[in-house]
Amino acid sequence: KELALTPSVVSFDRARMEDLLKRRFFYDQSFAIYGGITGQYDFGPMGCALKSNILTLWRQFFSLEEQMLEVDCSMLTPEPVLKASGHVERFADLMVKDVKTGECFRLDHLIKQALEKLSKAKDATPALQAECEDIIIKLDGLNKQELADVLAKYSIKSPLTGNELTEPIEFNLMFATQIGPTGLVKGFLRPETAQGIFVNFKRLLEFNQGRLPFAVAQIGNSFRNEISPRSGLIRVREFTMAEIEHFCDPALKDHPKFANVASEQLTLYSACNQMDGKSAQQATIGDAVANKLVANETLGYYMARIQQFLHAIGIKPECLRFRQHMGNEMAHYACDCWDAEILTSYGWVECVGCADRSAYDLSQHSAATGVRLVAEKRLPAPKTVEVSEIVPNKQTLGKTFKKDAKAITEALSKLSLDDIKQVETRLAAGEQYKLTLSDGASHELGADTIAVKHATKTVHVEEFIPSVVEPSFGIGRIMYALLEHSFQCRDGDEQRCYFTLPPLVAPLKCSILPLSNNAEFQPYTQKLSAALTKAELSHKVDDSSGSIGRRYARTDEIAIPYGITVDFDTLKEPHTVTLRDRNTMKQVRVALEGVVGVVKDLATARLSWAQVLEQYPAFEQQETTK
Amino acid sequence: KELALTPSVVSFDRARMEDLLKRRFFYDQSFAIYGGITGQYDFGPMGCALKSNILTLWRQFFSLEEQMLEVDCSMLTPEPVLKASGHVERFADLMVKDVKTGECFRLDHLIKQALEKLSKAKDATPALQAECEDIIIKLDGLNKQELADVLAKYSIKSPLTGNELTEPIEFNLMFATQIGPTGLVKGFLRPETAQGIFVNFKRLLEFNQGRLPFAVAQIGNSFRNEISPRSGLIRVREFTMAEIEHFCDPALKDHPKFANVASEQLTLYSACNQMDGKSAQQATIGDAVANKLVANETLGYYMARIQQFLHAIGIKPECLRFRQHMGNEMAHYACDCWDAEILTSYGWVECVGCADRSAYDLSQHSAATGVRLVAEKRLPAPKTVEVSEIVPNKQTLGKTFKKDAKAITEALSKLSLDDIKQVETRLAAGEQYKLTLSDGASHELGADTIAVKHATKTVHVEEFIPSVVEPSFGIGRIMYALLEHSFQCRDGDEQRCYFTLPPLVAPLKCSILPLSNNAEFQPYTQKLSAALTKAELSHKVDDSSGSIGRRYARTDEIAIPYGITVDFDTLKEPHTVTLRDRNTMKQVRVALEGVVGVVKDLATARLSWAQVLEQYPAFEQQETTK
Repeated sequence: KELALTPSVVSFDRARMEDLLKRRFFYDQSFAIYGGITGQYDFGPMGCALKSNILTLWRQFFSLEEQMLEVDCSMLTPEPVLKASGHVERFADLMVKDVKTGECFRLDHLIKQALEKLSKAKDATPALQAECEDIIIKLDGLNKQELADVLAKYSIKSPLTGNELTEPIEFNLMFATQIGPTGLVKGFLRPETAQGIFVNFKRLLEFNQGRLPFAVAQIGNSFRNEISPRSGLIRVREFTMAEIEHFCDPALKDHPKFANVASEQLTLYSACNQMDGKSAQQATIGDAVANKLVANETLGYYMARIQQFLHAIGIKPECLRFRQHMGNEMAHYACDCWDAEILTSYGWVECVGCADRSAYDLSQHSAATGVRLVAEKRLPAPKTVEVSEIVPNKQTLGKTFKKDAKAITEALSKLSLDDIKQVETRLAAGEQYKLTLSDGASHELGADTIAVKHATKTVHVEEFIPSVVEPSFGIGRIMYALLEHSFQCRDGDEQRCYFTLPPLVAPLKCSILPLSNNAEFQPYTQKLSAALTKAELSHKVDDSSGSIGRRYARTDEIAIPYGITVDFDTLKEPHTVTLRDRNTMKQVRVALEGVVGVVKDLATARLSWAQVLEQYPAFEQQETTK
Repeated sequence: KELALTPSVVSFDRARMEDLLKRRFFYDQSFAIYGGITGQYDFGPMGCALKSNILTLWRQFFSLEEQMLEVDCSMLTPEPVLKASGHVERFADLMVKDVKTGECFRLDHLIKQALEKLSKAKDATPALQAECEDIIIKLDGLNKQELADVLAKYSIKSPLTGNELTEPIEFNLMFATQIGPTGLVKGFLRPETAQGIFVNFKRLLEFNQGRLPFAVAQIGNSFRNEISPRSGLIRVREFTMAEIEHFCDPALKDHPKFANVASEQLTLYSACNQMDGKSAQQATIGDAVANKLVANETLGYYMARIQQFLHAIGIKPECLRFRQHMGNEMAHYACDCWDAEILTSYGWVECVGCADRSAYDLSQHSAATGVRLVAEKRLPAPKTVEVSEIVPNKQTLGKTFKKDAKAITEALSKLSLDDIKQVETRLAAGEQYKLTLSDGASHELGADTIAVKHATKTVHVEEFIPSVVEPSFGIGRIMYALLEHSFQCRDGDEQRCYFTLPPLVAPLKCSILPLSNNAEFQPYTQKLSAALTKAELSHKVDDSSGSIGRRYARTDEIAIPYGITVDFDTLKEPHTVTLRDRNTMKQVRVALEGVVGVVKDLATARLSWAQVLEQYPAFEQQETTK
């Protein structure tokens, strides 16, 4: 039952967490001193380090582990590329405007909000509540007219003014600009990083020595001109994505490493269960693929790896599910798509998309450019095929057409199989074939100048357009969910909040706190800081005044997992320091010489705090709080 | 003498290097299958890894080492921010257009090219040559009219058509767009990352507990709509920068770690020497600061660290100089500025700017927003200051102005010292003071409603606007210069080219080559690959057919510094492999168990190849080339 799978998030206090994030500048609204712009955020030192650590881990987890080809492509994209990909025509959200103030609202969000309010009203009948709930579940699958009907049926007005609203309007979410000084070349900021990979497919296939499958990764920013962004980092106008495009033979979507993940348990919320009002279910990815619930092994492999990655950075397992797109919600090109959704105080939020995009993108760019974006595979056995070509009679052709002969010969060699059949029909009927050159000129050719020749050829390979499986990570959303999942307040003290971020992703790995501003501590503090730098461990020295307890609380707030305190015992031989764990607040006594090594092992997950507690003597002195 | 300091780059074959970079997809033109756009490049797997490794090293070298605050700010920037920074008005290049075709040319580049051609012409007199050379050296310092005069004096025409050119036109280099669905909020893509740091100054100072100095770092992309970009990666429309803003007390620009770098030898090309036609000179940074050639220790410290960083990634020391901006070339706000220039086949290229921007940026944003972007410092001794304030007579004020009284009291509290003096003068003369409220309404106030009160106050701190020293790295340019400096061809074989990139930044650290496709090698290859992945060493398995020599040549092309070969001896106990060095092509025999550790030490610069040669037996078998 889904209820059992959905943990309660009642105890979470978003306002308190947001206050901390703002106060310690994890991130905050961009250009705030200028009034700011909604949907744009700047990451301060802690947010930036957290993001950077998540990306480093992502690279190790995906790029390095699977030996992916990582690329870094342009953000400014000329219009024809995004016409071919379908974004110019279809990358739009529906909005309505307040007829009097002109205020814009995103239609689906507006409807959801209005129906939620309606069904929570005192006089709401159970029938109305059920009706509202049903619409909300299916909202993502409704088209423009259906949404307009909902708007009319429930007489939805502007939530700010109560004014009437316009009919739904399609608003393209791409930011437009001009490239170059003439103002004639239209471009957009990319709305996703994927297209940069597709347009480089030929180069990448060649780099991989023509072999399939291979996966390409890209980390970079994308831009969407959201209609009315709210919900903090969840919906923003510029954001970092990490995308993978896995190219494979459409006939071979199995994955060599699938066995490694087959027993991974996932919470799967299938399209059928959504339509039928049923809840999500647990299954191993092995079973889900075997039962055809998940389309193929490659898709399933990535779903399992996505889950392992999210667990590794600290997402709560019980707050992660995979939701399948419903038929009418799925992008027109996809043949199966599952979103990794994470439960936050905003509800279930799509954080990673995992789609089988089939051959859509490469086909589109091939069609738009005439460049064949294909791979070759060896046939099981050589095949004999019939080939037809036009053989010009060079002598008569030259005599008849003089300087045009060369252009004619060239145009003839480019005729399609259908064209050649036409030529053959004409010539057989004793007629002339009218050939049009690229410059628009046309010439009549008869049996005296050309002939159609048939031959057979043995081929060993066949061409095909590869399929693409695409896991696409929204880094900001993952980060936000992770912050929510790791936010805690000390029992009995709501002022002492902290984040239990795993050491691997924590912004800083360690703090160094001299017990007081006694000058004798300084050489030890400096020596420790230099040693941590050499070991590539980010850290913070807090030698400000304030009790040790108060300074611990400050380092807890910015999620520093370990703290080294230099005290009077440190000055004596054998030199020792205390090492404190953020989550448990327990402390041990460690030799000065060895402490950097211990922190390094803790920070790289080669050692656990439990092991440290076993190996080193506990330090019992209580923290003086405040 | 400069001649002695300028190494010859005559032997460098740019076309051959570019062919290799393209063929192995280090980087290439973006959207090429759509015809491409000049000034935009996509980084393929090797270029992306090289860039990423340079940035990782940069973070360690600057951010971690100096415990800088790293931030990650928005690229889309609302217009008022860039008005305050001066970019809307002044961030422009001069261009001229072909009067017939409309083709645009960047004016300074056009003039340089034309004068170079002129002075190389057969009939060029020595006087003309000297004249041209003099203009070229001073080109960066000429204003619009002076450039127009040069254009006219030498009758410069379009180099493509020979047509007449328009008068110089200012073209703003920022890409414009609209933010939000209304189309009313104008924004630009940031032309530099620095502004994001300045607008966050208050938050960052607070994060640093109010203390100065501190440095903020940011790595990110910026955008400039270049008029006619050529020269490959040197001049592009979107590019990655790594910028540092070091905030300090304008009265204290010494640097605590300056002594560590004081003896670093730099090649300095001062403004005076440029104006006088003299050459660059060698000096230690200690002497340069002592002699006031470089403005202060902080600027000097960063110049030395920039040099150390560039040397560490592999830039040739003899191809690096620091050129000081000339008075009329320097940005209006800077008080001293030195560019780290690297010699490439395009000449000396500015790769890192290092400027003392004084208090310009914070002052501008303070003025534009009314938010005081200042720091405080403790006075050596408390100071008594006179304060004046307006004291309203609440009773009469309330009686006279009723509901407006509150707004009036508020407006009075915001009056400046000058305003208060005016009030005092008026009241003393028995006149009324006319107070204008923010809503435009105004009121007459007399001695019955307000009075001016003087008092003395003891202050312990004083406010000041910090100065900013800004090192700003162009990552793409550094990368390009590095590729040029490390490009080599094997003696006697121009087909075997490679890059001598240091292991620290090389895209991949190691290759694994089974001697042949014998199935017995496979378990060893797989085991090695897994062990390298675990050790976080990027690598490439090349088990394609082709002789071992040919495959070595392929790995050399993508700059892989070390190669492990699995051969028939590997199969026997004790299991061993060969380890090959790219630069020397020398090989040693290493135990299978130990080889990953050796590569790890080599890749992280804890071990040199010379040491490996001493510790392991040489493997003498020659590479079979092709």
